[in-house]
Amino acid sequence: MMQALGRQILVEFYQCNYDAISNADVVAQYMLEACQKANATIVTHTFHEFSPHGVSGAVIIAESHVAIHTWPEYNYAAVDIFTCGETISPWVIYKHLEECFESGHASSMELKRGLFDMGEKKLLFKPENTPKINSAVVK
Amino acid sequence: MMQALGRQILVEFYQCNYDAISNADVVAQYMLEACQKANATIVTHTFHEFSPHGVSGAVIIAESHVAIHTWPEYNYAAVDIFTCGETISPWVIYKHLEECFESGHASSMELKRGLFDMGEKKLLFKPENTPKINSAVVK
Repeated sequence: MMQALGRQILVEFYQCNYDAISNADVVAQYMLEACQKANATIVTHTFHEFSPHGVSGAVIIAESHVAIHTWPEYNYAAVDIFTCGETISPWVIYKHLEECFESGHASSMELKRGLFDMGEKKLLFKPENTPKINSAVVK
Repeated sequence: MMQALGRQILVEFYQCNYDAISNADVVAQYMLEACQKANATIVTHTFHEFSPHGVSGAVIIAESHVAIHTWPEYNYAAVDIFTCGETISPWVIYKHLEECFESGHASSMELKRGLFDMGEKKLLFKPENTPKINSAVVK
């Protein structure tokens, strides 16, 4: 039976509030809030604000990542939500960001990543007995 | 005419060399090398190594981002390469990582992100006269 290690939601947020997607601090806060709402385990994150406008950033979560690029000049944000395991729902993250950005029109698609034919065996996204996270971060 | 702000390549690297995808320092080095080869402007990056195995990370580039999740236990790495503009090719990044990971089987798909009907006007991924990057990074 084909099983997937991860699921990924690719989102196009159109008609966003300019102010909601133009400041790196604000975008970072919304992204972290979204991850917390979904009960994701936040590992590390980085956000960057471009001149004259645009924010890029990513939150690495134990369950994978959420990445964003915004073009305030087009009131547009591209968001990728990659999750593994059954403990969190990417759609909680989606919903929170949609509300924060006040997106007037959003489109999304969900994909499966890392497909394996495991026969009767269950595909584990992490070995069951070792959920511990090593806190070392490479800079 | 419909024009896209970005293009994104979603890659599944199967049958990778265990050692090439199990250490955060090594994976970070390969990812940064790949970005340099493609002449991408590296803005910031973060990588994390999970216990007992697995690496997650992202490189924010001026032209968007490259993100990775590895499952050494399955010899598998999921890579997303999101680029904007015409100056860099995501396939250069793809090729470098494929070689570094010694992937025996890879599959990929390319998507357009941020589609706008601009009529005769050209969609600019960043305003032409302001290519400068603000170096502030939110932690």
